[in-house]
Amino acid sequence: MEVYLDNSATTRICSESVEKITYVINNVYGNPSSLHSKGLEAERELTVARKSIAAQLSAQPSEVYFTSGGTEANNLAVFGAANARKRLGNKIVTTAVEHSSVYESCLNLQKNGFDVVFLQPDINGKITEQQLADSIDEDTVLVSVMAVNNETGAMFPVECIRRIIKRKNAPALFHCDAVQAFGKISVKPNKIGADLLTVSSHKIHGPKGTGALFVKNGTHIRPLIYGGEQEKKLRPGTEALPLICGFGTAAECIGNLSEKMLTVTSLRDYAVERLSQLDGVVINSPADALPYILNISVVGLRSETMLHFLASKDIYVSSGSACARGKKSHVLSAMDLPQNRIDSALRISFSKYSTREEIDSLAEAVKQGIDVLARAR
Amino acid sequence: MEVYLDNSATTRICSESVEKITYVINNVYGNPSSLHSKGLEAERELTVARKSIAAQLSAQPSEVYFTSGGTEANNLAVFGAANARKRLGNKIVTTAVEHSSVYESCLNLQKNGFDVVFLQPDINGKITEQQLADSIDEDTVLVSVMAVNNETGAMFPVECIRRIIKRKNAPALFHCDAVQAFGKISVKPNKIGADLLTVSSHKIHGPKGTGALFVKNGTHIRPLIYGGEQEKKLRPGTEALPLICGFGTAAECIGNLSEKMLTVTSLRDYAVERLSQLDGVVINSPADALPYILNISVVGLRSETMLHFLASKDIYVSSGSACARGKKSHVLSAMDLPQNRIDSALRISFSKYSTREEIDSLAEAVKQGIDVLARAR
Repeated sequence: MEVYLDNSATTRICSESVEKITYVINNVYGNPSSLHSKGLEAERELTVARKSIAAQLSAQPSEVYFTSGGTEANNLAVFGAANARKRLGNKIVTTAVEHSSVYESCLNLQKNGFDVVFLQPDINGKITEQQLADSIDEDTVLVSVMAVNNETGAMFPVECIRRIIKRKNAPALFHCDAVQAFGKISVKPNKIGADLLTVSSHKIHGPKGTGALFVKNGTHIRPLIYGGEQEKKLRPGTEALPLICGFGTAAECIGNLSEKMLTVTSLRDYAVERLSQLDGVVINSPADALPYILNISVVGLRSETMLHFLASKDIYVSSGSACARGKKSHVLSAMDLPQNRIDSALRISFSKYSTREEIDSLAEAVKQGIDVLARAR
Repeated sequence: MEVYLDNSATTRICSESVEKITYVINNVYGNPSSLHSKGLEAERELTVARKSIAAQLSAQPSEVYFTSGGTEANNLAVFGAANARKRLGNKIVTTAVEHSSVYESCLNLQKNGFDVVFLQPDINGKITEQQLADSIDEDTVLVSVMAVNNETGAMFPVECIRRIIKRKNAPALFHCDAVQAFGKISVKPNKIGADLLTVSSHKIHGPKGTGALFVKNGTHIRPLIYGGEQEKKLRPGTEALPLICGFGTAAECIGNLSEKMLTVTSLRDYAVERLSQLDGVVINSPADALPYILNISVVGLRSETMLHFLASKDIYVSSGSACARGKKSHVLSAMDLPQNRIDSALRISFSKYSTREEIDSLAEAVKQGIDVLARAR
């Protein structure tokens, strides 16, 4: 039995999304920008998908801009906002534990003269409202903070940011990377006061290669890509129709968030219970993390060693962000965890399809791994 | 019977590509960056696709970088090259008739201080070797010229550019937008001496939403997007696996170029013969254009009017580039065609699936359109 517990890296495409993609690639081949009926037919499909994403975000369809995924959407938000507002100030406030697509974009802006504050998390991976209030000021043009950290599941106080920006009279746009939150908790940009918010398809059982940036109506940012009228010129290029339609359908299938949360919380609690009993296992995720992500260390055993041992048993977890391809985690490093915990970290990430039996298999395999691999040293 | 003659806007996905995408969305859901076997399985599919595109380009797989399509690849090439070389010079040489993704990128660079030369075509839409030689100099850091114009089919003398760059001792990278040439004529970047070359999936019967930039090994350009290790950090973000695999398969199915060229040439010639007999029809494409594209004007009848009339008969052509959504063509304007020819232009574009019967239907419908619509005025 395959045990896939790497859902924060990517998810299996749900059958409804597969069906939609299959329909589109077989039947809808027009270019949405073509003026004739073949084009209109394709554009209609695009509109359905846009409405679906908008509905999940309680936003207007006109506020949804499709991109090639979360990474591009994050880049568009960070560069787009910073470059549009650079005459109003020079400071960017973000965290040291953002996804690399925000983190590296901010590093790039820093190299180009922006004053970037990377807020450091505490040892539990948490960022506080106080830290945000201490950093955001009247020179701040962009605040980019993720809703849920992709390695630990730590949830950040994004709902206080709009208020701080207002209080400090900051000319800042607020961008929220909600890739790990979308489809798991309620994500309503207009409610939390985000001007820009990123979501991704392949984390919600949609296909890889598409995502969207919410851009609040009336908010102006600079495009990354030029040419063509698509996505109101903010993101030109012929639309990835099969993927976008699959994304729209996956969003429709997200289901009841509270029910899923209950199930996944009990799964996570069970996993913590089983794994904590094992020799050398430490939990890295904060206790109040989003339960979809559980970061642990099996102290004394390198992440890759355990990961490959588990994979040999058809059990899939990760050592950190997939995008980092096994490089040392900048998230756990920023949390200032002891080196032996960083080197032995494993990220276990659940989906609505995860089961108690899978946790049993995982716990048994980790136990076996500890026995076999520790002996081998 | 549906008559689809808008293949330069987009093509129908071929059955082999549909089959591949279907396989991938049903079976391969790992993240190619994941270190476990689910990830490796996905990465293997990516490698197969990369080899397929490389083979078509007679290039190394390591020289192929997947993007979200031709527009992004063109932007990556233009901005990536100009920004990487800006210390070596300040001049960019391109044409006034590039696809909007190159044209608008160059306009943006011009606004930011680059000296951009937009070479003007003659009334036949042609650019000469002499024009290139007169413009490229020791201050030139980028030459971006398309292989085949997307509105007229005019073929540009791209094979002389490398020689001119060398002779002028220009520190220039040479980028070729080969979107309309790929799969139709032989496109070998290493043979023509291109450092950067753009191809797109949905123009060769692959899915919309992916394309690739050829980057000659050893050539350094700046990324547009940051974060993640994918595509050797030149284009990070989780790969659009279903589309990329479909693109790879579509490339495998390109078939024999000379055979297709013979068929399409005879189709085009037949279309010219039939259409030229009609009242007010003028041919805008040069006589030696790539036969896959035929631009005509039905003088006195606005493009949109005729386009919708034809669509009502299930015949699909376009008024120009799909990406321009019916805006006045910058290509025909640059050719300095009389206004009444620009306003009445139609682009008819063929594929290997086009037939003589389709040309008959088109010619009859255009004739009918002229009769009905001219009377209606």
